[in-house]
Amino acid sequence: MRPLLSWGTWRAVLARAGRPRPSADYLGVLDAQGYARNPPVGACELQGELDRFGGISVRLARLEALDRLDATAFKKGLQVAVQQWQSEGRTAVWLHIPILQSRFIAPAASLGFRFHHAELDSSTLTLWLGEGPSRLPGYASHQVGVAGAVFDEGTRKILVVQDRNKLKNMWKFPGGLSEPGEDIGDTAVREVFEETGIKSEFRSLLSIRQQHTNPGAFGKSDMYIICRLKPYSFTINFCQHECLRCEWMDLNDLAKTENTTPITSRVARLLLYGYREGFDKIDLTVEELPAVHTRLFYKLYHKELPENYKTMTGID
Amino acid sequence: MRPLLSWGTWRAVLARAGRPRPSADYLGVLDAQGYARNPPVGACELQGELDRFGGISVRLARLEALDRLDATAFKKGLQVAVQQWQSEGRTAVWLHIPILQSRFIAPAASLGFRFHHAELDSSTLTLWLGEGPSRLPGYASHQVGVAGAVFDEGTRKILVVQDRNKLKNMWKFPGGLSEPGEDIGDTAVREVFEETGIKSEFRSLLSIRQQHTNPGAFGKSDMYIICRLKPYSFTINFCQHECLRCEWMDLNDLAKTENTTPITSRVARLLLYGYREGFDKIDLTVEELPAVHTRLFYKLYHKELPENYKTMTGID
Repeated sequence: MRPLLSWGTWRAVLARAGRPRPSADYLGVLDAQGYARNPPVGACELQGELDRFGGISVRLARLEALDRLDATAFKKGLQVAVQQWQSEGRTAVWLHIPILQSRFIAPAASLGFRFHHAELDSSTLTLWLGEGPSRLPGYASHQVGVAGAVFDEGTRKILVVQDRNKLKNMWKFPGGLSEPGEDIGDTAVREVFEETGIKSEFRSLLSIRQQHTNPGAFGKSDMYIICRLKPYSFTINFCQHECLRCEWMDLNDLAKTENTTPITSRVARLLLYGYREGFDKIDLTVEELPAVHTRLFYKLYHKELPENYKTMTGID
Repeated sequence: MRPLLSWGTWRAVLARAGRPRPSADYLGVLDAQGYARNPPVGACELQGELDRFGGISVRLARLEALDRLDATAFKKGLQVAVQQWQSEGRTAVWLHIPILQSRFIAPAASLGFRFHHAELDSSTLTLWLGEGPSRLPGYASHQVGVAGAVFDEGTRKILVVQDRNKLKNMWKFPGGLSEPGEDIGDTAVREVFEETGIKSEFRSLLSIRQQHTNPGAFGKSDMYIICRLKPYSFTINFCQHECLRCEWMDLNDLAKTENTTPITSRVARLLLYGYREGFDKIDLTVEELPAVHTRLFYKLYHKELPENYKTMTGID
């Protein structure tokens, strides 16, 4: 068993968690970097960052000396710190724990902390200190799947697959889960290529499905988006691992067959409508716009807006 | 320190993890419920459920005697079990750990396990055993925010707010993050009411924004959806906590003002287009459809489809 640190050592260890700016830390006020002011002498020295919602964040990765601290001593220190933060009116505590320090999770849980999320090599626990039920923002709630309806206007053919390992084999569009940070259209193009060998480019977003408590999404919600893609290769070379069949099918046939899923049938009819009356009737087109507060960009999808409405020229 | 269990006891403890169907478990083949067949005598007795992708799931919550097991003994047992599963060609191991048993996380991590996800009182770790990079599905990748563009056709007024606590106060639509299991339209109606006191009903989905590596989404992606709502109350009673101002503004003014965000301005112009030329030009309407393999229903959004295309009547 690891040696148990004395309470004095624990205080010293935790005091090192703050930035090396002791003079500012001891001013007794919140400093410019948003670090919590030091509590009165005699109370716990545990320092975290104060966020703009009145919560405290503690990052165990910054507390290297914790390697020598055992779970029981950690629990005592955390308990004192939480009482101090609560008396100061803090609304919440966020505890960021590297995976190899996970022995501190159970002690925190015994004080009421619960997992907010975890990914790869760290977890984040929270404890709500404010009044009423927790108002902390939740973690990602949806997985996003994207399918590509690859339609060739010249031949009126649409690319469809049948999944391997399904009880009932029904025609559907190739597609799959988006990778982290991947744009909707890019997911559609990638998945279509991986499953069928067909190269294509994004044309529009056609339909969105939302479904909850999805077993395949670890109980979370599922957003499934269908895009219209234009093919620029036509020789099928489908993934034997994922697909049983892959074909270019006449769009009329797909719109009429019963051997398909309700959503595929609906989108086939939508495409038929667009093919006959103009794709502007069904397409959501995409544009990249700048975010206000960051240097990031985002993609925005909506029905195509006539140019005079975009620029407000001649609109009074 | 907790007493260390002998390897024999550990084997016995782990053997209890399977369902109480010893005769089927010992048939030496995968049984109908998908439980892994028992390994040869002398190897580790750790049992998990075999999934249809060739992975093994171990639920520590089912191993009550683990309360008496320490982390070192757990690590040894897990190591032997992993070697056994790998030799049997299993592709992955899923380890489900209750929060109060989190002392087993670090030992698993030292064998290569990483967090797949965690929520409230349990975490799930994974270890990929297959060839090449992991093909395990990721966890929820997006948070979903929904805003309500509450537009009153009779007066051409639209409901806008200015957030409190923003450096630059810009007019925008009320909105916020969806609750777990909440439909897009319900989020819009709820957020509008909470922020402004206005009651409204869902009319259509207008626009979707996708943004990645969002700091406000814990580094995950953000899907932001704007709905068109129709008000059925008009007296503003806005939340002083969240909003600085709240007004019914002429839609023309919102479409022209510079004191707004790019996305609000764009959607205001889209609404103006719909108001003048017909909302069917901009609306994605919603319908509830049954899922194929479950008894669940989902909501599907796309451009309204003429009735003859829906039923394929008179379409050849």
